[in-house]
Amino acid sequence: MSDLKLPTRSEDFSEWYNQLVVRAELADYAPVRGCMIVRPYGWAIWENIQQALDKRFKATGHVNAAFPLLIPKSFIEKEKSHVEGFSPELAVVTVGGGKELEEPLIVRPTSETIIGHAYAKWIQSYRDLPILINQWSSVVRWELRTKLFLRTLEFFWQEGHTAHATAEEAEIETRKMLDVYTDFAVNEAAIPVIPGRKSAAERFAGAQETYSIEAMMGDGKALQSGTSHNLGQNFAKAFDIRYLDKDGALQYCWTTSWGMSTRFIGAIIMVHGDDQGLIMPPRLAPLHAVIVPIFKSDEEKARVMEAGVKLRDELIAENIRTKIDEREGMTPGFKFNDWELRGVPLRIELGPKDIAKGTVVLARRDRPGKEGKCFAPQAGLAQIISTTLSEIQKSLYERALAFREKNTHAPRTYQQFKEAVETGFALSFWCGEAKCEEQIKEETKATVRNIPLEQSGGRGQCIHCGKPATEQAIFGRAY
Amino acid sequence: MSDLKLPTRSEDFSEWYNQLVVRAELADYAPVRGCMIVRPYGWAIWENIQQALDKRFKATGHVNAAFPLLIPKSFIEKEKSHVEGFSPELAVVTVGGGKELEEPLIVRPTSETIIGHAYAKWIQSYRDLPILINQWSSVVRWELRTKLFLRTLEFFWQEGHTAHATAEEAEIETRKMLDVYTDFAVNEAAIPVIPGRKSAAERFAGAQETYSIEAMMGDGKALQSGTSHNLGQNFAKAFDIRYLDKDGALQYCWTTSWGMSTRFIGAIIMVHGDDQGLIMPPRLAPLHAVIVPIFKSDEEKARVMEAGVKLRDELIAENIRTKIDEREGMTPGFKFNDWELRGVPLRIELGPKDIAKGTVVLARRDRPGKEGKCFAPQAGLAQIISTTLSEIQKSLYERALAFREKNTHAPRTYQQFKEAVETGFALSFWCGEAKCEEQIKEETKATVRNIPLEQSGGRGQCIHCGKPATEQAIFGRAY
Repeated sequence: MSDLKLPTRSEDFSEWYNQLVVRAELADYAPVRGCMIVRPYGWAIWENIQQALDKRFKATGHVNAAFPLLIPKSFIEKEKSHVEGFSPELAVVTVGGGKELEEPLIVRPTSETIIGHAYAKWIQSYRDLPILINQWSSVVRWELRTKLFLRTLEFFWQEGHTAHATAEEAEIETRKMLDVYTDFAVNEAAIPVIPGRKSAAERFAGAQETYSIEAMMGDGKALQSGTSHNLGQNFAKAFDIRYLDKDGALQYCWTTSWGMSTRFIGAIIMVHGDDQGLIMPPRLAPLHAVIVPIFKSDEEKARVMEAGVKLRDELIAENIRTKIDEREGMTPGFKFNDWELRGVPLRIELGPKDIAKGTVVLARRDRPGKEGKCFAPQAGLAQIISTTLSEIQKSLYERALAFREKNTHAPRTYQQFKEAVETGFALSFWCGEAKCEEQIKEETKATVRNIPLEQSGGRGQCIHCGKPATEQAIFGRAY
Repeated sequence: MSDLKLPTRSEDFSEWYNQLVVRAELADYAPVRGCMIVRPYGWAIWENIQQALDKRFKATGHVNAAFPLLIPKSFIEKEKSHVEGFSPELAVVTVGGGKELEEPLIVRPTSETIIGHAYAKWIQSYRDLPILINQWSSVVRWELRTKLFLRTLEFFWQEGHTAHATAEEAEIETRKMLDVYTDFAVNEAAIPVIPGRKSAAERFAGAQETYSIEAMMGDGKALQSGTSHNLGQNFAKAFDIRYLDKDGALQYCWTTSWGMSTRFIGAIIMVHGDDQGLIMPPRLAPLHAVIVPIFKSDEEKARVMEAGVKLRDELIAENIRTKIDEREGMTPGFKFNDWELRGVPLRIELGPKDIAKGTVVLARRDRPGKEGKCFAPQAGLAQIISTTLSEIQKSLYERALAFREKNTHAPRTYQQFKEAVETGFALSFWCGEAKCEEQIKEETKATVRNIPLEQSGGRGQCIHCGKPATEQAIFGRAY
């Protein structure tokens, strides 16, 4: 944290992001190129994300487990598209315990292969199905261009891996987990997302169908924020995951996988942040409120601190995550800026006058300046804060939705399309052909984000080639 | 799970353990030698351990963060004893993204070095101290002889890393975390432990002082179950972790680290298990109670299942982790054995007669046979179960403590000492010299487990060399 101002978002969105992440102490650069340290404040956000997701996974019948970090190299090579997709990105362990290994080991880039191997061993009969397992872990992919949270060599995530008796069940699972991600994004992170199907070119390496949720960042670009894959029988065949059905016949399983990562912290920053810094949606905020004590003399300080500590304890007892900023040698103004940078939803200012009147000043992070400030009585403050936090949560969602709607266009011409994706999304009919997709990307830098599950219906013409098209896709430039 | 019986503990303790771990579906062997898969039932135990520890870490002012998996090789070499201790055990990444790396990277065996590097960057002044960070992660050490949970190439753990302004604060922290581990072991896992100081030979590589908690397993051998290290200024000097004190002088920090791992699951198995399988201490048990429905006809089944589901929901509402075993094609007897193998503290048998009488049969896992069975009314069952679980928790602790006391001897002669460590611990005066320690190990396979913090006082003669000694140590054969 330093006194310097962040660049504004309109000046340089990318640099605003980079500086914010480091200065708000969310993450830091590691000594190994492209790796990150998630600092305690950033990790506290991830812990809240984990809890919110894990609760949903367990409510939908999933259990957690842990599979090994190290995967035999030969495993990666068993599924053809998988190896093509992941080979260029692998970190390889060639030496162990001082000796060259006979078979090199891969640091997992994702765990379909090693989990597929285990499932083949564990599954014998239809009675063993479905298997619904999730894992919280980190994975390593040798990325060339990295950015904290958004793309790093190592990142933290959860990966769900399930096996089913039928194609239908696997598809239901894939879509159910997409719904879980949507529900999480909307209701916990206050981020509106578009659930949809990926184009063939953007599918997970080895998947039969990939679904994603896509969100619009504050600069109009898209961020893929969670994915759910129907793997068909691809991995079941590669790893021989089979079961005896009720008639005693041997069948291949149908498998799925789905993941959400620390990348999502990047989405929170870029969707809600403003020129002063981060704005945390209350439900995922490590801190709901910070009390900044204001005093001049030692006598005032003693009185203010006593009242502040009492207030903090009362709020914590009501499940409001509260801290009192006791740091010495810093002005209240400096502390205000610091907590604004870190995006704490509510600031509570407490000085001698407030104590005399039995009030506090409450300042909303999402409404800068006087508009967001009000006096509130100390008695019953927890209730007022709870209500205000709900309002902030709702208001952040509405603001993000309005921004996305304002910046999502339905261009009539390819020229309009090109202009639309300069600053936001284009919702356009698309013929579904890879060649069109590729040319659009070359000409506009925009890609098919996904084909939304919710379609307005009807038919139209591909925005690029003019051929008849039955589906609309979301196009945008992406992180 | 199969119908075969486990070997008894007296027949072959090691094989009893190996088979139990796999058949109770706690863990499985991974395709890479020495690695393990922690299966959902085993991971659920770990999640309960994590929660119980994490709550204690946060209550003592610690926060969580995440540091990178990959560490530059040169980092490991900066602290002299550290590199000597860890070099033989390293897994080395030499290829990334298809290219030979300029500097090989180590898969972390522990994180003092990479965290030391970060602390050097983050700490400027005494105002930044103390730093109290914990990390939940996995680490890799190239072990030659492995055993599920007890010693694997990759294992899961938490590692706390703190930095302080003074030597006193670092020592207080080191001991505080040892107390946290002791409190956890005793009150959550029902495992009596001996907190003490390690001998110089058994110190962590790079530590100034290592403390441990030691537990006695069911075969009389010792398991080091948690360690806390005062690192002095060793890592601060190697990584240049310095701060400006109040007088403006630059000082090296004093650091600590402390860890507990999935190894502890091995302790739970070996302390509480019996010939039928695992016995979970209720506070860490994934399931407190399992309802086994008993019926003959379809009509009976319908009635029993309805009552069982209702009972389960009532118990869950009272925070009793309950499952109803709805598996088809298995006899109640098979299910009894299966849940005994998995160590669920309470079995609830529910049949048509029970429904007619409004009762259930409650069977305690810790008391086999009729002695542990009783009828209990369905009304108010949650309260009865809560009380019974507390009793089981207490009784497991007392049984383990009695076992340890019975098998801990105070030998008068070296001959008696040799006999004592055949089957348990010896508490003996020791001169403190490495040479004596080494000879005892050669002659008896027993090592100094630790020098208990609680000493009876007085003076004596070293059990091996007869020289005057002021401290008693716990000796035992160890895992």
